[in-house]
Amino acid sequence: MEIRLAEDLMDANNRVAAKLKSHLSKKGILTLNFLSSPGAGKTTLIEKTLQRLKGLAKTAVIVGDVQTSRDKQRFEEGGFDAVQINTEGGCHLTAPMVEKALDSLELDALEILFIENVGNLVCPAGFQLGEDMKVVLLSTTEGDDKPGKYPAAFFSAQAMIITKIDLLALTNFDLDFAKKDALRINPKLKIFEVSSLKGEGMVDWVDWLLHRAKRKRRDLKLPDGCTL
Amino acid sequence: MEIRLAEDLMDANNRVAAKLKSHLSKKGILTLNFLSSPGAGKTTLIEKTLQRLKGLAKTAVIVGDVQTSRDKQRFEEGGFDAVQINTEGGCHLTAPMVEKALDSLELDALEILFIENVGNLVCPAGFQLGEDMKVVLLSTTEGDDKPGKYPAAFFSAQAMIITKIDLLALTNFDLDFAKKDALRINPKLKIFEVSSLKGEGMVDWVDWLLHRAKRKRRDLKLPDGCTL
Repeated sequence: MEIRLAEDLMDANNRVAAKLKSHLSKKGILTLNFLSSPGAGKTTLIEKTLQRLKGLAKTAVIVGDVQTSRDKQRFEEGGFDAVQINTEGGCHLTAPMVEKALDSLELDALEILFIENVGNLVCPAGFQLGEDMKVVLLSTTEGDDKPGKYPAAFFSAQAMIITKIDLLALTNFDLDFAKKDALRINPKLKIFEVSSLKGEGMVDWVDWLLHRAKRKRRDLKLPDGCTL
Repeated sequence: MEIRLAEDLMDANNRVAAKLKSHLSKKGILTLNFLSSPGAGKTTLIEKTLQRLKGLAKTAVIVGDVQTSRDKQRFEEGGFDAVQINTEGGCHLTAPMVEKALDSLELDALEILFIENVGNLVCPAGFQLGEDMKVVLLSTTEGDDKPGKYPAAFFSAQAMIITKIDLLALTNFDLDFAKKDALRINPKLKIFEVSSLKGEGMVDWVDWLLHRAKRKRRDLKLPDGCTL
């Protein structure tokens, strides 16, 4: 009974998500849903990505937290458009929360929408928010054993970003083990190794993102039902 | 309706937890429920604590993960008694899961029981497992802004352990800010600063634990309803 209700809630969420995805796709907006543990570096990665995208793509951020608007402040201080969602205890964002947040954004000019989920490697995996893809972060300071322990997050993502790569030598994180563990769960996972603060690996990640955003806008001009 | 059902589930859990707490208390077992983000260092802290408690107290570990028995293996390789719970997607342990795990442990000789919850700073906070206290970990590599963002975990705990203190200088973690933020949420929080790997701060933490365990056993000998 508990499980059925949970499935119903997930279905209801995913129906709203499908509507959002269609709406965002018609506007040619590439939408990314970022998942990770608290403190793996989602906010910093998105901040540094937005800085590199200045002049190249029009961006905005929807940021989810249980409480506080600390992340929205950080983004706004950097001159970026940001909307904060507080879940007030909820362990993940939902599509209706994102739907409401979209009211505060200028969608017509937008090209890439970043959604930063609540820091949690379990709950957000099952809830679609209208995104084109999930991106999961794994920091070197967290340990290489996390993909196998939290498989749903790695299974549901299209890209994995190994963050804090500059701290690798100070940890016992085995890069090879972590990548194999993640690819065992999801063989199609695109993997990046990044230090958001030091800049290592950022060019590859931003190039990949821009390529996806361009493809999304190109799809927009194709007849209905056709994708490249 | 969703909220009422969630409350009912929590109530049902907490009734089992109250029964477990009474059962464990009658045996004079100090029971600790460890909460943190994935990778904040729960397993390593517990491992190093168990090593220091050898010959001083009889210990055991119940370890929760979404999947894998990696942590149980780690504990057993160190010569410690460990029971693994896999939640198979669940984002926190529940009291009935712990009740079942207790069947595999020799409770009569036990003095301190460590319960390592699923790595998650949101969901485990509301679910009692029969513990005397919750202990929340916050690693320096995670960021100093987490108490305010995830207040329930810090509000529900009696002790906070700031881990990976040896990496402090390499991060922008503000120790003073993190402590004030946590104490604003929970002024009674006992705070430790620890490097499990390098040993810094471990003596204070283990002393405090032993003191609590001794007090628990002393309480056992007092007439019913009396505590020191």
